[in-house]
Amino acid sequence: MSEAAQTLEGWYALHDFRMIDWTAWRLADEAERQKATDELQQFLKEWSAVSESRTGSTVVYSIVGQKADLVFMHLRETLEELNELEVAFNKTSFASFTYSVYSYVSVVELSNYLASGSGDPMQNPEVVARLKPALPNAKHICFYPMNKRRSGNDNWYMLGMDERKAMMRSHGMIGRSYAGKVKQIITGSVGFDNWEWGVTLFADDPLQFKKLVYEMRFDEVSARYGEFGDFYVGNQLDEEKWSKLLSV
Amino acid sequence: MSEAAQTLEGWYALHDFRMIDWTAWRLADEAERQKATDELQQFLKEWSAVSESRTGSTVVYSIVGQKADLVFMHLRETLEELNELEVAFNKTSFASFTYSVYSYVSVVELSNYLASGSGDPMQNPEVVARLKPALPNAKHICFYPMNKRRSGNDNWYMLGMDERKAMMRSHGMIGRSYAGKVKQIITGSVGFDNWEWGVTLFADDPLQFKKLVYEMRFDEVSARYGEFGDFYVGNQLDEEKWSKLLSV
Amino acid sequence: MSEAAQTLEGWYALHDFRMIDWTAWRLADEAERQKATDELQQFLKEWSAVSESRTGSTVVYSIVGQKADLVFMHLRETLEELNELEVAFNKTSFASFTYSVYSYVSVVELSNYLASGSGDPMQNPEVVARLKPALPNAKHICFYPMNKRRSGNDNWYMLGMDERKAMMRSHGMIGRSYAGKVKQIITGSVGFDNWEWGVTLFADDPLQFKKLVYEMRFDEVSARYGEFGDFYVGNQLDEEKWSKLLSV
Amino acid sequence: MSEAAQTLEGWYALHDFRMIDWTAWRLADEAERQKATDELQQFLKEWSAVSESRTGSTVVYSIVGQKADLVFMHLRETLEELNELEVAFNKTSFASFTYSVYSYVSVVELSNYLASGSGDPMQNPEVVARLKPALPNAKHICFYPMNKRRSGNDNWYMLGMDERKAMMRSHGMIGRSYAGKVKQIITGSVGFDNWEWGVTLFADDPLQFKKLVYEMRFDEVSARYGEFGDFYVGNQLDEEKWSKLLSV
Amino acid sequence: MSEAAQTLEGWYALHDFRMIDWTAWRLADEAERQKATDELQQFLKEWSAVSESRTGSTVVYSIVGQKADLVFMHLRETLEELNELEVAFNKTSFASFTYSVYSYVSVVELSNYLASGSGDPMQNPEVVARLKPALPNAKHICFYPMNKRRSGNDNWYMLGMDERKAMMRSHGMIGRSYAGKVKQIITGSVGFDNWEWGVTLFADDPLQFKKLVYEMRFDEVSARYGEFGDFYVGNQLDEEKWSKLLSV
Repeated sequence: MSEAAQTLEGWYALHDFRMIDWTAWRLADEAERQKATDELQQFLKEWSAVSESRTGSTVVYSIVGQKADLVFMHLRETLEELNELEVAFNKTSFASFTYSVYSYVSVVELSNYLASGSGDPMQNPEVVARLKPALPNAKHICFYPMNKRRSGNDNWYMLGMDERKAMMRSHGMIGRSYAGKVKQIITGSVGFDNWEWGVTLFADDPLQFKKLVYEMRFDEVSARYGEFGDFYVGNQLDEEKWSKLLSV
Repeated sequence: MSEAAQTLEGWYALHDFRMIDWTAWRLADEAERQKATDELQQFLKEWSAVSESRTGSTVVYSIVGQKADLVFMHLRETLEELNELEVAFNKTSFASFTYSVYSYVSVVELSNYLASGSGDPMQNPEVVARLKPALPNAKHICFYPMNKRRSGNDNWYMLGMDERKAMMRSHGMIGRSYAGKVKQIITGSVGFDNWEWGVTLFADDPLQFKKLVYEMRFDEVSARYGEFGDFYVGNQLDEEKWSKLLSV
Repeated sequence: MSEAAQTLEGWYALHDFRMIDWTAWRLADEAERQKATDELQQFLKEWSAVSESRTGSTVVYSIVGQKADLVFMHLRETLEELNELEVAFNKTSFASFTYSVYSYVSVVELSNYLASGSGDPMQNPEVVARLKPALPNAKHICFYPMNKRRSGNDNWYMLGMDERKAMMRSHGMIGRSYAGKVKQIITGSVGFDNWEWGVTLFADDPLQFKKLVYEMRFDEVSARYGEFGDFYVGNQLDEEKWSKLLSV
Repeated sequence: MSEAAQTLEGWYALHDFRMIDWTAWRLADEAERQKATDELQQFLKEWSAVSESRTGSTVVYSIVGQKADLVFMHLRETLEELNELEVAFNKTSFASFTYSVYSYVSVVELSNYLASGSGDPMQNPEVVARLKPALPNAKHICFYPMNKRRSGNDNWYMLGMDERKAMMRSHGMIGRSYAGKVKQIITGSVGFDNWEWGVTLFADDPLQFKKLVYEMRFDEVSARYGEFGDFYVGNQLDEEKWSKLLSV
Repeated sequence: MSEAAQTLEGWYALHDFRMIDWTAWRLADEAERQKATDELQQFLKEWSAVSESRTGSTVVYSIVGQKADLVFMHLRETLEELNELEVAFNKTSFASFTYSVYSYVSVVELSNYLASGSGDPMQNPEVVARLKPALPNAKHICFYPMNKRRSGNDNWYMLGMDERKAMMRSHGMIGRSYAGKVKQIITGSVGFDNWEWGVTLFADDPLQFKKLVYEMRFDEVSARYGEFGDFYVGNQLDEEKWSKLLSV
């Protein structure tokens, strides 16, 4: 049996991808749309307050293409909070103008492949900041879930700890070379959702997503062992863009 | 031909995953919602009585994320009882506010890979208690179906009994190391549903699901031979949480 | 080129899996439900008459779980009869309360892997009885479609006739050891539907399905060469159970 | 690089598989049904005229099972004609009682694996008759799309021309042994649709489809290199059968 | 670790595939259809102006078969522009008569496998013209997304740069042999969408799509390393054809 990497976990995460029913929205009368918008604003304010109080973090982006119109990414202390949050939102009249196309449940994770230093990592403010991160203020988001492959000779889970650690270090160095250009949040979902990990990237220039993911694909960890789900790319929604998005 | 492991079977199981149509629920008038809630309460009481009489066991959890809103997990003596139960529930007005997204039919199973002792196991109260278990009172549930792989050189069913037994023992020891933290119910569905086994885990701390499943993934049984379906994670629904869930 | 096994074909088969729209059924007025039930009864009587006249055979079971509510299994002399039958049924008001979730078109088949004796097999009453069988009166049904694998070194169709015959004999012996407990009907659908064969099992004790299919899975024919579709398990619908099923 | 086989192309083909919404059809008033039937008749007449003028060919069959109710198979000189034809049909009120479940775009193709003779094949009336065929008047249709596999050691496109030619000759001989029993039309869809080829078989005895496809499956071309999509089998719709099909 | 090819990126691309709801369109009253058509015309004019000002490019084709009725292919400077464009279109009453069936987000890409010359390529007008292309005026379109395979011994991303470069040159030569017959636009979507590349071909004779894609399939790059998504083929929509398409 191969040794499992030790992991540290922080906030739980919910990525909630939704379509807007544009026909229903267009045909609704002004009062209905206003009510829905008010409810949405109320939630956006609450989520913003959570972010400010550092008890969680929420960002919202519009998704490009017809796979989704919106993604809400929520980080919270517990699964209960995430569940309450999604149920409360589902009961709004705004949510009735949308429908869910994909969601992903996970938890912010640091693995010890890259560990350095000693002592209780949860006493390390830098570690805690990475486990309970304020989601960045970036113009673009990229999200994809992934597995480590277990197929014939390409079986990540049959490799020894040292081999995995060496490959992960090389992999991490690519990521680090994009420091300042791409911010990366890794969440783990083993036992929670259909993929093992979710990768959420943030950047002001979306080409950096392409360059980073493409470069990593030639790295053995991805080339031999990476299995990828759907990719989503989106644009940040600020107040002005929300207003433009919903105006008819 | 490789020798099949002997198995013992207990209660039949139905996992019934459902979405709530929140728009219909919100727009229903108060009387309709009350009628639906009353019907639901009636069923919850009946199921609770079954659990108390030890003629079966039912638990209900809310599911986190947009794969489902609820899971009803029922254990009963016969397939007929499960079928009657699901049909009766489908005829309620509460069920009309929901739609099925996944279900899984199986039977509680013990395999003799881990057998010890002699004599008729069905005379052993401990064995019977595991085959006809009272589902635990735990804050969280995790469910996933799985197969043993039959692919090229990774073909579980072509291995000899001894090799399988040795691997299953090692696998079982990981499970046992989580005693007190995670309670596990294995159900078999060969001949009943699309996967060979269902794993239902119960814990008060959902992180233990992640740690257990991740640790097992490095075990050869999972690493080389495990194929996994969708993972669902949920929060226990008690009376107060049901009330909060359904209030609009 | 490997030699194809000779096969004998009998009645054509249609497995028709349907859901009931319980909300529509519950909300229909009593007269509509009565009309629909009368139409259903008329069809059940006609199908029963066909079975009695030995010009075909039909059985109906309720399916456990949310993959389907009902399966109609029809055997008839020709594809035209099956097509007329399904179209006629689709035009009933009962059918409007249901929707199709899966169907499977095939023909009852005997392969010569297990052949014994000489002469024209169609003059052998025992063979004819197996090709045009009266479907058994059993409490439970199990159905799954399957292929023989053609993958890398596990390619059934590249094996020689002798090797296939030896494996099929061993496979058949497992089936025979369940005589009296499980009745098996094999139908072939090469050229007719997406899978190569359909297996329909009948038993009074559904655990025998699990034990039979599990034991066979360790047999090389299944372990290396079997690919399986969805599994359905159901309970026999007699007049009383139909009445209970449809009462609201 | 392996040498591509030369191909000859004739008429473009559209296979259009549709379900009938039987509830809508049954509940429509007689005048609506009559209007829809008249429109359908008009199209059937036009298509028949095209067939008679040898500027194309159209046949219609009812499909057995719940994958489809109807297939329209159209051959025409250009993609533009096929597109106009499908759009015109989609605008009829008859089409509003149906919905599309599958379609396949391709072109009648002859490959030079089986070529014999010299000179410009398009001057050969026999070749032209095969490229622009009058679809046969047969009681039954069978359709399935297929690919040649490119997987590990079973990669058709890495084989040399001679090896492919030898295998295709052997394959063709099986087809020829069914002459008089099964008529086969091969259409290519590389660059047009998701599969590389479509096989459309016509026969008066549908068992011949099963025997032909099963026998071919043991041939190396299919056994090692064939990947198959969904199979559809149907019954010819003449005027009387159309009338019976649509009567309520 | 294998060296990633350098790439140059130009305009962002959105391929938007839609069905028309023909029943809704036919049953709409003339005024509704006129309003929808006017809105569509307005958008077509705006997109045409963008093309003329060389700040982007848009073409529209009707798709043959029932996978889609229309494809809008848009090239624009930024993801924001593409997102605004799709949202604005989704709010039209014309869009309410359609529904999305597939979309693909990517960016026009040149890889340095085929690079020649030195200096800053973005100062090379020919390179810029290829990165920000005016989409051609061609009678037919063909689109398919693709990956480079990472499977067992057929793992593109584990090959050395030289090996990949040699194979890509050979591949490129096939493309070049179709110069004047087929125009090809390659877009990359690593990090943006589910496939790594999209291939959009334009030709006046659609048979050239088939011949090009088929010939390439025997090339090692495609034969061993190509994985392909759905293929779409379409006919150019000019004013007259739009008018014919939408008339009822």
